[in-house]
Amino acid sequence: MNNPIIIAIDAMGGENAPNKNIEGVSLFLKKNKKKNDVFFKLYGNIDLIKKEIEKYNISNEHYKIFPSSTVVSDEETPLTAIKNSKDSSMWNSINSQIISNTNITLSAGNTGVLFVVSRMLLKTIESVSKPALAGLWPNQKNMNVVLDLGANVECDEKNLIDFSEMGAALHKALFPEDTPKVALLNIGSEEIKGTEVLKKSYSRLKEISKNGDFQFNGFIEGNKITHGESNVIITDGFTGNIALKTAEGTAKFITDALKQSLTSNILAKISVIFSFFALRKFKEKLDPRKFNGAIFLGLKGPVVKSHGATDAVGFYYSIDLCYRIIKGDLMDKIKSNLSHINRDGN
Amino acid sequence: MNNPIIIAIDAMGGENAPNKNIEGVSLFLKKNKKKNDVFFKLYGNIDLIKKEIEKYNISNEHYKIFPSSTVVSDEETPLTAIKNSKDSSMWNSINSQIISNTNITLSAGNTGVLFVVSRMLLKTIESVSKPALAGLWPNQKNMNVVLDLGANVECDEKNLIDFSEMGAALHKALFPEDTPKVALLNIGSEEIKGTEVLKKSYSRLKEISKNGDFQFNGFIEGNKITHGESNVIITDGFTGNIALKTAEGTAKFITDALKQSLTSNILAKISVIFSFFALRKFKEKLDPRKFNGAIFLGLKGPVVKSHGATDAVGFYYSIDLCYRIIKGDLMDKIKSNLSHINRDGN
Repeated sequence: MNNPIIIAIDAMGGENAPNKNIEGVSLFLKKNKKKNDVFFKLYGNIDLIKKEIEKYNISNEHYKIFPSSTVVSDEETPLTAIKNSKDSSMWNSINSQIISNTNITLSAGNTGVLFVVSRMLLKTIESVSKPALAGLWPNQKNMNVVLDLGANVECDEKNLIDFSEMGAALHKALFPEDTPKVALLNIGSEEIKGTEVLKKSYSRLKEISKNGDFQFNGFIEGNKITHGESNVIITDGFTGNIALKTAEGTAKFITDALKQSLTSNILAKISVIFSFFALRKFKEKLDPRKFNGAIFLGLKGPVVKSHGATDAVGFYYSIDLCYRIIKGDLMDKIKSNLSHINRDGN
Repeated sequence: MNNPIIIAIDAMGGENAPNKNIEGVSLFLKKNKKKNDVFFKLYGNIDLIKKEIEKYNISNEHYKIFPSSTVVSDEETPLTAIKNSKDSSMWNSINSQIISNTNITLSAGNTGVLFVVSRMLLKTIESVSKPALAGLWPNQKNMNVVLDLGANVECDEKNLIDFSEMGAALHKALFPEDTPKVALLNIGSEEIKGTEVLKKSYSRLKEISKNGDFQFNGFIEGNKITHGESNVIITDGFTGNIALKTAEGTAKFITDALKQSLTSNILAKISVIFSFFALRKFKEKLDPRKFNGAIFLGLKGPVVKSHGATDAVGFYYSIDLCYRIIKGDLMDKIKSNLSHINRDGN
């Protein structure tokens, strides 16, 4: 057997921790039982974690528990957390990449603190000035990588170009059979549209894409994100955050209206019996837990943020994401892609 | 009878014109037959318009046709249009507000040209530096007004405050029973989040809202747009355009997936028989034609832009929007609201 992939888990982060975190680990081990190639380092309160481990009957060849005395709360700011939380489960799960041979860190805790502490401990890659938060977004063909989702309110063309190379690397790591196809989110598809930063990024990306790391598809409008012609969508953290949350809100608005319609009268309720399997497939396809997990790109070690409010299934998907990131050699791919920008004299 | 509301219609603008435009007029007259309080001025090719008028058997007490020699194409830029299109149906329908007693103009033609020509002919209200494009967006309780949807890529706090007052006026004109509740679109709801422009606008709006033109709800995130706690959503034209189009794309993505599921097997197809009425209600509730019509705010006369690709029903809804704008005294409300900012010493 090769060395296993080592995932450090902040077992105390997020709602209903450590229950959902450990149940997520158990789900992952069940679905991947043929491969004994993952090992979990679990950070947090030993007694609480042990209780969950017993509940899910996880064999001790798969994990080790590391004690942590505190938990970062949702109310904590990055500043107070750096002062107060040096023995928190979150801190220790990140630091695990520095002091031992951990490959990746996963937390469902406070996003702002996770980002700042990760950046502080793992350090930013030399040529990158702003790390970004990348997420998965379904499209008609497969899956988009979208970044930045909120780490940087303002971005210049250098940032957007870094994001493009790192996003392309992430897409390649997760979906090796696809060509990364980068597009810049804008209010029109013509070359003359949008802000100065977008226009400059457009010209640079046209050049840089000749390196072959990705295909550059130019500008993309919001209504085309789900079409699948482009699968790496690049934008600043303000716009990306608004787009992501607007999409989430719209999806919820529509599915709520559908639920309401399908329970509005007895005939509609009967119809649900007949459409049960079709609607289940529909629900499964759009299940947000499948896209759970945002990736901090631009740090010297990979960190994944799970949604705080997700359940064990959602947490399972973010563990799976960690696994695929390491299997897909994300860090090497990022290094290689970024070196292509530098060679071109940025 | 009072003086009728006079609506100038660019009968040649948009796909399938003048058919859908005239059929839209006919639909409006049928639904409003008890009120003889609207009169249409139809601009375009007399022969083509007459043919449609005959098809829908519209009585000549309701309209007058004004000949126009050209049509603004979708390819035209504002610059070429100003040079070439001084006798276009679009130009004449706007100019109608200057040379005669027309109340409002409606076009489904080229948005960029419509915006620039409207601004040139009707002029911007003195205290407003940037007019904006406002649209309707459904929420769980009723309807949002959202602006700017794309007229201004960059906006400062003065612009966002003007948009707030004008958006509140529009909401009051269209939904007189509601209190306009303004919120600024941002990436978090805390006062310290977002760009400098947003933070400054936040403090100013907190003050200005004491005038009573609207309730100020602070910042709103993208996933809350449809909740209905706020109903006037303010943002710059870049962010607004991305949010609107992302919502449109998400809605289409989900309803397409639903359609696919409900035709995937014979049981699902049977279910549609039982849920026919419930699904029809669902479809009707979210029918984008109901929200058809964007309003240029900040000009001395009101102009409504219909979606170019909509059909007669969509065009009907934008005629209805024009009617409600004039009935609701939009221009007086805007003037009054804007005067409150000035009184506060902006």
